[in-house]
Amino acid sequence: MGMAFPFSAIVGQDEMKLALLLAAIDARIGGVMVFGDRGTGKSTAVRALAALLPPMPAALAGFHPEGAPPPDRKATVPVPFVDLPLGATEDRVVGALDLERALGAGVKAFEPGLLARANGGFLYIDEINLLEDHIVDLLLDVAASGENVVEREGLSVRHPARFVLVGSGNPEEGELRPQLLDRFGVSVEVRTPQDLAARIEILKRCDAFERTPAEFAEAWRAAEKKTLRRLARARAGLAHVTVPDAILARAAQLCMAVGADGLRGELTLMRAARALAALDGEAVVGPAQLARVAPLALRHRLRRGVLDETGSTVRIERALDELAAA
Amino acid sequence: MGMAFPFSAIVGQDEMKLALLLAAIDARIGGVMVFGDRGTGKSTAVRALAALLPPMPAALAGFHPEGAPPPDRKATVPVPFVDLPLGATEDRVVGALDLERALGAGVKAFEPGLLARANGGFLYIDEINLLEDHIVDLLLDVAASGENVVEREGLSVRHPARFVLVGSGNPEEGELRPQLLDRFGVSVEVRTPQDLAARIEILKRCDAFERTPAEFAEAWRAAEKKTLRRLARARAGLAHVTVPDAILARAAQLCMAVGADGLRGELTLMRAARALAALDGEAVVGPAQLARVAPLALRHRLRRGVLDETGSTVRIERALDELAAA
Amino acid sequence: MGMAFPFSAIVGQDEMKLALLLAAIDARIGGVMVFGDRGTGKSTAVRALAALLPPMPAALAGFHPEGAPPPDRKATVPVPFVDLPLGATEDRVVGALDLERALGAGVKAFEPGLLARANGGFLYIDEINLLEDHIVDLLLDVAASGENVVEREGLSVRHPARFVLVGSGNPEEGELRPQLLDRFGVSVEVRTPQDLAARIEILKRCDAFERTPAEFAEAWRAAEKKTLRRLARARAGLAHVTVPDAILARAAQLCMAVGADGLRGELTLMRAARALAALDGEAVVGPAQLARVAPLALRHRLRRGVLDETGSTVRIERALDELAAA
Amino acid sequence: MGMAFPFSAIVGQDEMKLALLLAAIDARIGGVMVFGDRGTGKSTAVRALAALLPPMPAALAGFHPEGAPPPDRKATVPVPFVDLPLGATEDRVVGALDLERALGAGVKAFEPGLLARANGGFLYIDEINLLEDHIVDLLLDVAASGENVVEREGLSVRHPARFVLVGSGNPEEGELRPQLLDRFGVSVEVRTPQDLAARIEILKRCDAFERTPAEFAEAWRAAEKKTLRRLARARAGLAHVTVPDAILARAAQLCMAVGADGLRGELTLMRAARALAALDGEAVVGPAQLARVAPLALRHRLRRGVLDETGSTVRIERALDELAAA
Amino acid sequence: MGMAFPFSAIVGQDEMKLALLLAAIDARIGGVMVFGDRGTGKSTAVRALAALLPPMPAALAGFHPEGAPPPDRKATVPVPFVDLPLGATEDRVVGALDLERALGAGVKAFEPGLLARANGGFLYIDEINLLEDHIVDLLLDVAASGENVVEREGLSVRHPARFVLVGSGNPEEGELRPQLLDRFGVSVEVRTPQDLAARIEILKRCDAFERTPAEFAEAWRAAEKKTLRRLARARAGLAHVTVPDAILARAAQLCMAVGADGLRGELTLMRAARALAALDGEAVVGPAQLARVAPLALRHRLRRGVLDETGSTVRIERALDELAAA
Amino acid sequence: MGMAFPFSAIVGQDEMKLALLLAAIDARIGGVMVFGDRGTGKSTAVRALAALLPPMPAALAGFHPEGAPPPDRKATVPVPFVDLPLGATEDRVVGALDLERALGAGVKAFEPGLLARANGGFLYIDEINLLEDHIVDLLLDVAASGENVVEREGLSVRHPARFVLVGSGNPEEGELRPQLLDRFGVSVEVRTPQDLAARIEILKRCDAFERTPAEFAEAWRAAEKKTLRRLARARAGLAHVTVPDAILARAAQLCMAVGADGLRGELTLMRAARALAALDGEAVVGPAQLARVAPLALRHRLRRGVLDETGSTVRIERALDELAAA
Repeated sequence: MGMAFPFSAIVGQDEMKLALLLAAIDARIGGVMVFGDRGTGKSTAVRALAALLPPMPAALAGFHPEGAPPPDRKATVPVPFVDLPLGATEDRVVGALDLERALGAGVKAFEPGLLARANGGFLYIDEINLLEDHIVDLLLDVAASGENVVEREGLSVRHPARFVLVGSGNPEEGELRPQLLDRFGVSVEVRTPQDLAARIEILKRCDAFERTPAEFAEAWRAAEKKTLRRLARARAGLAHVTVPDAILARAAQLCMAVGADGLRGELTLMRAARALAALDGEAVVGPAQLARVAPLALRHRLRRGVLDETGSTVRIERALDELAAA
Repeated sequence: MGMAFPFSAIVGQDEMKLALLLAAIDARIGGVMVFGDRGTGKSTAVRALAALLPPMPAALAGFHPEGAPPPDRKATVPVPFVDLPLGATEDRVVGALDLERALGAGVKAFEPGLLARANGGFLYIDEINLLEDHIVDLLLDVAASGENVVEREGLSVRHPARFVLVGSGNPEEGELRPQLLDRFGVSVEVRTPQDLAARIEILKRCDAFERTPAEFAEAWRAAEKKTLRRLARARAGLAHVTVPDAILARAAQLCMAVGADGLRGELTLMRAARALAALDGEAVVGPAQLARVAPLALRHRLRRGVLDETGSTVRIERALDELAAA
Repeated sequence: MGMAFPFSAIVGQDEMKLALLLAAIDARIGGVMVFGDRGTGKSTAVRALAALLPPMPAALAGFHPEGAPPPDRKATVPVPFVDLPLGATEDRVVGALDLERALGAGVKAFEPGLLARANGGFLYIDEINLLEDHIVDLLLDVAASGENVVEREGLSVRHPARFVLVGSGNPEEGELRPQLLDRFGVSVEVRTPQDLAARIEILKRCDAFERTPAEFAEAWRAAEKKTLRRLARARAGLAHVTVPDAILARAAQLCMAVGADGLRGELTLMRAARALAALDGEAVVGPAQLARVAPLALRHRLRRGVLDETGSTVRIERALDELAAA
Repeated sequence: MGMAFPFSAIVGQDEMKLALLLAAIDARIGGVMVFGDRGTGKSTAVRALAALLPPMPAALAGFHPEGAPPPDRKATVPVPFVDLPLGATEDRVVGALDLERALGAGVKAFEPGLLARANGGFLYIDEINLLEDHIVDLLLDVAASGENVVEREGLSVRHPARFVLVGSGNPEEGELRPQLLDRFGVSVEVRTPQDLAARIEILKRCDAFERTPAEFAEAWRAAEKKTLRRLARARAGLAHVTVPDAILARAAQLCMAVGADGLRGELTLMRAARALAALDGEAVVGPAQLARVAPLALRHRLRRGVLDETGSTVRIERALDELAAA
Repeated sequence: MGMAFPFSAIVGQDEMKLALLLAAIDARIGGVMVFGDRGTGKSTAVRALAALLPPMPAALAGFHPEGAPPPDRKATVPVPFVDLPLGATEDRVVGALDLERALGAGVKAFEPGLLARANGGFLYIDEINLLEDHIVDLLLDVAASGENVVEREGLSVRHPARFVLVGSGNPEEGELRPQLLDRFGVSVEVRTPQDLAARIEILKRCDAFERTPAEFAEAWRAAEKKTLRRLARARAGLAHVTVPDAILARAAQLCMAVGADGLRGELTLMRAARALAALDGEAVVGPAQLARVAPLALRHRLRRGVLDETGSTVRIERALDELAAA
Repeated sequence: MGMAFPFSAIVGQDEMKLALLLAAIDARIGGVMVFGDRGTGKSTAVRALAALLPPMPAALAGFHPEGAPPPDRKATVPVPFVDLPLGATEDRVVGALDLERALGAGVKAFEPGLLARANGGFLYIDEINLLEDHIVDLLLDVAASGENVVEREGLSVRHPARFVLVGSGNPEEGELRPQLLDRFGVSVEVRTPQDLAARIEILKRCDAFERTPAEFAEAWRAAEKKTLRRLARARAGLAHVTVPDAILARAAQLCMAVGADGLRGELTLMRAARALAALDGEAVVGPAQLARVAPLALRHRLRRGVLDETGSTVRIERALDELAAA
C-alpha cells in the first residue's frame, strides 16, 4: 500500500496520538477505542505509528509453527499492521484448518489467521460497532490474554497474539455494549477540526503527500526520529516508574466518584498514568499524569444516567477538581 | 497463560470463594452461577481455585479413548481448568467426528471436545446469559449427570465429564430462564468493593502480581497451603457428616416459606450445609451452616412476585429468622 | 448412568405412576404427557419404570438390519430407556446415512437413530414444548404407527419403533398446539408436594440413594417385585377384559359432555379403562375404572372457553357425576 | 403397516367418501382437500380406498427409469398409497441426485422421490396447511400435469406422476392461500359425529379391528366387493356420459351467482357431476348430480365477504335453489 | 405434456393475445406482464403461441457449447417453451457447474440452465410476484440484454438467451416493485369472462380438447394457419414500417401527461405501435396503433397517487383523448 | 453485448457526463454515485465512456498472477467495463479458491473475481442501495485503496484493483447509510428530461442506434474524437495544475458553512476542481471550477436537518454565493 503518512505530520488530534503512544509503551493498557466523525484520519494515525516504530525481532512477530526451526536471532521485521478487511470471514480472523494440506497430504494443519499476523503489532478495526458482538468479544479476549485459543474444525491450537487493538466507530451509528466497551483500555474522541488554518494545513499536507510522497517523508524525517526516541526512552523507563499510594488512592476515589463499575477503571488509570510518566521522563507518577489520562481511561466506563446530560469528559474533570480541592 | 493469581490473595468476595470451595468439596451440589458487575475478578477466582488444588490421578482427568491402554496408576496431572472461549463451535464443546481420521483412514473416530477436557476439573463460562439456551441446557445436563452423551454425525459416544460448572452473568444484560437457573446448585452475587482501602489493596496486589509474579506467589505460598489443607480435610470428612432430621425439616420449611418450586432447593440446602460443616470441621450439620448456605442455595430459585420488591437474600434471611423464632 | 431409583420408592405422584403403568400395559394407549413443576422427579419415574421391567427378547428391542442373522431366540436385553439429549440433531433421532460406510465402501447404508434404539422401551423427552413442532409431530407419528419411515439423503427405510413416548413440560413456558396434545394418549399433572413429612421423606430417600445406592435398592427389592408381579398379571390379562356397551356409551357421553373434539378421547378412555381393569385384576371394565382414568384421558383434549376458568379436571369430574346421577 | 381398515366399514362421513370415489373415477377432477376436526379418521379413509382398489398394471405404477426393460405386461402391483411423512425433505419428495452412484460410479443418476412412488395411486398429506406454500404449490402442479419436472443438482428429469392428491387441515390452524385452495378440485368438511349410537358403533368397530383384524376384514368382505364393483362400473362408463348444454349453463350460472373467481369452478362442476352420473349408472348428467357435487366443487372457491357470515355450503345451496326456481 | 390448446381457440382475452403477438413480432418490446384472476388460461395462451410458431433454425435455439461443432444449417427445432417450475433452484435457472464432469473428469464445465433452454422461445413464470426480487431482476436483465452472464462457482460464462419473458401475478397477492414492473415492456389485465355464452363456450371447448384432442386440433387447423400467416407477414414487414415525428411527439406527450417516469414508456410505445402497424399490414404508424398499444405500454408505469382512484387504463385513455382533441 | 452507444450522442445529462469525465481524469476523486429516476440511461453513459477511451497497456488492466510472465509491453487491451450482475456471489466479486485446481491438482490457487477484471477500468453497480452494506463497503474499500485484499478459504491474496466505481440508485427505494455515501467522491442527480424536443431527440437517436448501429456510430465519430482529445489533454495536464491557497481556504470554508462532516468533502473539492481545470485547459484552479464541482462533491455529504427542507444543491449554491460576496 505504498508509504505511510508520517505520524508527526498529523495535524492536531493530540488525544488520539497520545492514546496510541501510551498503548505502544505498555500493552497491558489494552485496546484503544476511537469515537468520532468519519474522514478524520483515524486509520492514517494507526498505520503511521506502526510505520514509525523500528523493526522488531522476527521471533516476536507473526506466527511460528510448532516444530519449525526458530527464526534467526538477529533477524528483524517491520512492526505488523493489520487492517481487518470488511468481509474477512471468522476462520481467517482466528485461523482455520489448512484446506490445501488437508485435501492434499491428508493432515490436519493450522492455517494461521489475521490474529497471528498481527502478533507483535497493531490490529485496526474500522467501524467496530458494525461487527457482531461475539467477534468483538473474541478480539478483546485475545488482545487481553495475548494468546489466541482456537477450538474449531477438530483443531485445538494456541499461539501468541500480542497486539494493540484499535477500534473506531461513530456512536451515532449504534454503540457497543457497555460490557464490551469496558474491555477497551482507553478511548478517545476525534472531531473534524473547526479551525480554518488547521483545515487548510491538512489539505496541503495531504496534497503534498499524495503528489510527492518521497519528498514529503524526507521533510518530516527529523520530526519522526524525535518522536521515536521519546517512545523508546519511555519503553525503557517504564519498569522503573513508581506509583505512590496517594496516587492509587486518588485513582480509586475518582472511579468511585464518577461511578465507574468494576475495577478495570482504576487499573487502567494506574497503568496509563505510569506510561505517561515514562513518556514525560518522570520517575514517579504525579497528579498531572493522572489528570491527563483520566478522560481516556474512564470516559467509556461511566454509567449513563437517564437525566444526566453532562458529557463524560466534563464529569471526569469536575470530579478530578473536587478531589484536588479536597 | 502463565501463573495463576493465588486464591488466598483475592481481596473480599467471601461468598464467591465459599461457593467455589463448597462445589469443590461435593460435586453433587452442582454448578455455581455468579451474578454481578464486570471487572470483579470472577474468572480470576475460578482459575485460582483450580491452580490451588493438588495434582489429580491422570486416569480421572480428561478423556481416555476406549481400547487405549489406561494411564499409569501413579501418574498425576494438574486439575483441568477450561475457559469456554467465545466462538467455540458446538462440535468443539461436545466433541465431534475426527475429520482427519475420517478423511485419512476412513474411520469414524471421536474427537473429544471441551467437555472431555474439563473432566475432573472446572468449566468456566463468562457471560453465560449470552449463550443460546440449548447450549446452556446441554452443559447443565452434562454437569448434572457427569456424563457426556454425543449423538451426532453418526457418532454415538458417552464418556465421563465430571466437572464443576461455573457461569457468570450480569442480570442487567438479560437473565437466564428460571428453568435453567434452577439447575445451578448455588448462586452468588459479587459487587465492586466500595471500601477505599480494599480497592487500593486490590490495585497494589494486581500491580505486584503483574510486575513480579514469582515473588508475589512466594509471598502467598503459606496462605495457599493453609486453604488447601482445609479443603482436603473437608473432602475427607464429608462422608461422615450427618444431617439431623430437624435440619432436614427446617430446610423443607424454609423452601416452602420462600416459595421455591420443586425439590432441588432443599436437596441443595442439605448438600451445601453438609459440605460447609465438613469445611468447618463439624461432624453434625447445625442451624448455623444451614443459615449460611441458604442464600446461596435458594436466591436464584425464588418466584418473583410482580409487586414484591424485596431482594431475594432479604426474603430468605427473614424467613430463616421466623423459622428460628418459631 | 449407574443404578436407577426404585419405582416403588417414589413418594406420592400416584397419577404419574398410574399413567406410566397403564402405558406399559397397553402400548396402544399412546404417549404420556406430564405437565408440571420442575424438580419433581419426572425423569426419575420413567427411568425407574424401565429399570423395573424384566429383560425382554433381544429380537423385539432396538434395531436389526435387514439381511443380518436374527438374534438368538432366547437372548434377552434390558428394556430400552432413551432420554432424548438436548442438541441431538434430527438425523440422530430418525437415523441417517452411515457416513463411514458411504465414504469408505461407497455404499448407502442406514445408521439407525434414537427411535431405533428406543424400540421396545421408553423414549423420554424433557421440556418437549421447547422442541420444534415438526419434531414433536414426527415423534408422535412414529409412536402411533410403531414404525419409523425414513425418507432422506437418498435413503428409504422403515423399521419397527414401538415405544412409550413420555414428554414433560411446564405449561407456563408455552404450551403445545392442541393438535399435538390430542395425539398424546394420556396426560398427568405433577406438583411439588406441599406436605412437610412427604418432603422430608423425599430428602431422606434421595440422600440414602445417593450415598449408598446398593443398600437402598436392597431395602426396596420386595416392593419392586410386588409391583412387577402386578404389572405382569395385568399384561397377561388384558386380552380377556371385556368392555360392556354401557361403558362405551358412558365414555362417548362423557366426551360429548365435556366437549372433546374428535374420537381419540373415547378410544383412549376405552383402552385406559381396560388396562386399569387388568391392573385391578377385574375381568370386566366398570364405572370405577372409567372414572379413575377419565381425567388422564381427557384433560388435555378440552376446548378452552375464553370465559371458562374452571380447571379441566374439575369439569371432567363434574360431568362424570352428572352422568352417574342421570 | 399391516392391514387397512375396510372402506365400507367407515361409519358416516359420506361426503368424504363420495369425494374420494369421484377423484378415483376421474383423475382430472384434481386433488381433494379435507377440512375438519382432528381424530375423525381422514387418513384411515384414504388408505382404505387405496386398499380397496384392485391391483393395477405394474407399468402404470411407480417409477420406471429410462432405458430399463419395461415391466412384464401382465405384472400387477397394489395401488400405491403414500403418506407424506413429516420431516421428509424436499429432495425426497421430488427426487434427487443418486448420491451412491454419484460418489461410487461417478455418474449423475436420478433417485426417484415420493412423487414417483405415488404414481398411479394416492398421495396423502396430513395438516397440509403446515407445509410451506411452495411445496404445496409444487405438489398441486405435479398433480395437475401428471408429470414431475425436476430441475436441480444438475439433473433435468421428467417422469409420469399421476396420483390423487388428498390434503387435510384444520381451518382453525391457519388456512391455505386462496390461490392454492383454488387448485384443489373438490373439498369436503368432516366433523366428529354428534350421534351417540354412531359414536358407540365407531368405538366397537375400532376395537374389533384392533383386536382381531382378520376376522373384522372377513366380516366386511362382501360390502367391500360391492363398492368395488360400483367403482369399476363408473370408471368404465365415464367416457359415455354426456353433459347437456343446460347443465353447462347452470354450472356457469351457479359460479357467477356465488362469485367463484376463474373458470376452474365450472370445469370441476362439469367433471365431478359427470363422474357422479357414472357412479349412479346414468348416461346423462342431470340437475341432481350437479346439486350434489356443487358444495364439493365450489365451497373452497368462494370469496369471503367481510360482512358475510353465511357458511359457504348454505350460500351454494341457496344459489342452486334460486336457479332451479328461475 | 401432450398437445397444446390451439391459440385461435382461446375465447376472448384479446388484449393478452395481442400483447403476446406483439412481443413475438419485436423482441425488443420486452417482457409481458399479465395481471389477473386465477384460472383464466394465462399459461394456456403462452404455451399455445409457442406451439403455433413454425420450427426455427436449431442454431438459434437452446444452448450450444463453445468448441462444439455448429448444428446443421438446415436443422430446425420447435420454438422452445419453458415454464419455470416452482422450486427450481437458482443454479438451474442460470446454469451451474456440471457436477458430473467436475467429480468425474475433474474439469470445470458449464451445465446450462433454464435460461439457456428458453433461448429463442418463451419463458413463462406463473405467480412471478412470489419469486424473490433478485431472481425477477436477473430474469429481466437477461431478457433485456439477450445474454446470460454467469459468475458463480468459479465459472465465468456468457451465452445467448433471447426469449420473450411472460410473467403472471395477481395484484391482490402483493405487487412487484415499480422498479421491476418498469422493466416489463407491456402489461395486460385478464379477467374471468362475465358473459354466460362465453363461459359455456369455454367449457365446451375445454371438454372437447380434453376428451378428443386430435379432433379438436383438426377443427382449428385453418384458423391457426391464418394467425400464423399474419404473424409471419408482420415479422417480415417490421423493418419497413416508419414512425412519423408527430407520432413520436404524441408518444412523448402522452408519457408526460400521465406521469410515467423515465423514457422506457415512450420507447415501448414506439416499438409496440410499430409492431402493431406491421401486424395490421400498415407501412406507417398512425394514431390508431398508438392508441391501441398505449394501455399495454403505460398501464404499469404510472405513479399511483394516494388520492387517485381512477384506474390506470382510464387515465391513459383520457390523456389520449385530450391529446387528440388538442 | 455489441456496440456501445456513443458518449457524445447522449442527450443532456451534463452533470453525469461531467462527473464521469472528472473521475476518468483523476482516479483519486473516488467513486461516482448517481441518484435518479429509472430509465434515464445511467448504465448507457458509463458503458459509453469506457468504450470511448483508447486501448490501454495490457499490463495495467485485469489480473496478472504472480510468477506468470509479464504481458508484452506494447500489448494493449480495451478499457475494462464490468457491470456487476445481479446474483453474482461474493466469491465471484472478490475472487475465491480455484475449485478446479483445488480438486484436480490439489493446490490452492486464486481464481480472480470481478474486482480483478475491472482493474484499470470501470465497475458499474445498478441499484447499489439493494446490495448489502458490507459488500458496498468492501467495494468502496477496494476502490479507495486500489488494491483487493482477499482473506478467505485459506487464501491470502492482494492484487491491484484500480477502477472507477459508479453506483446508481433511486433514493425513494431506500438510501445508503451516510457512512457509505461519504466514501463516494462525487454524486450527481439525473432526471427524466421534461423538454419535449429533447425527448423526441432521444427517441430518434435510440431508434437509429437500435436499427442501424454502424451508421449511427459513424455519424458520431467526429464528436467522439473531440471528446477523447479533450480528455487526453486533461489527463496529461493534471500534474501541472496548481491550487492557490485562497481556493483551498474557500473549499474549507464552504465545507464548514454547509456542515459537511470530516475532511473528505474539501479533499474531493480540491481534486475535482483541479481535474475540471485540467479539462478546461487551465493551469490554475479558479473560483469557477470550485463552484461548478461543489454540488457534485458535497451534495451527498450534508447533514440532513429534520426541519430543513431546502435541497442540498440549493444550500451549497447559497453558501458559495455568500462566500463570494464576503
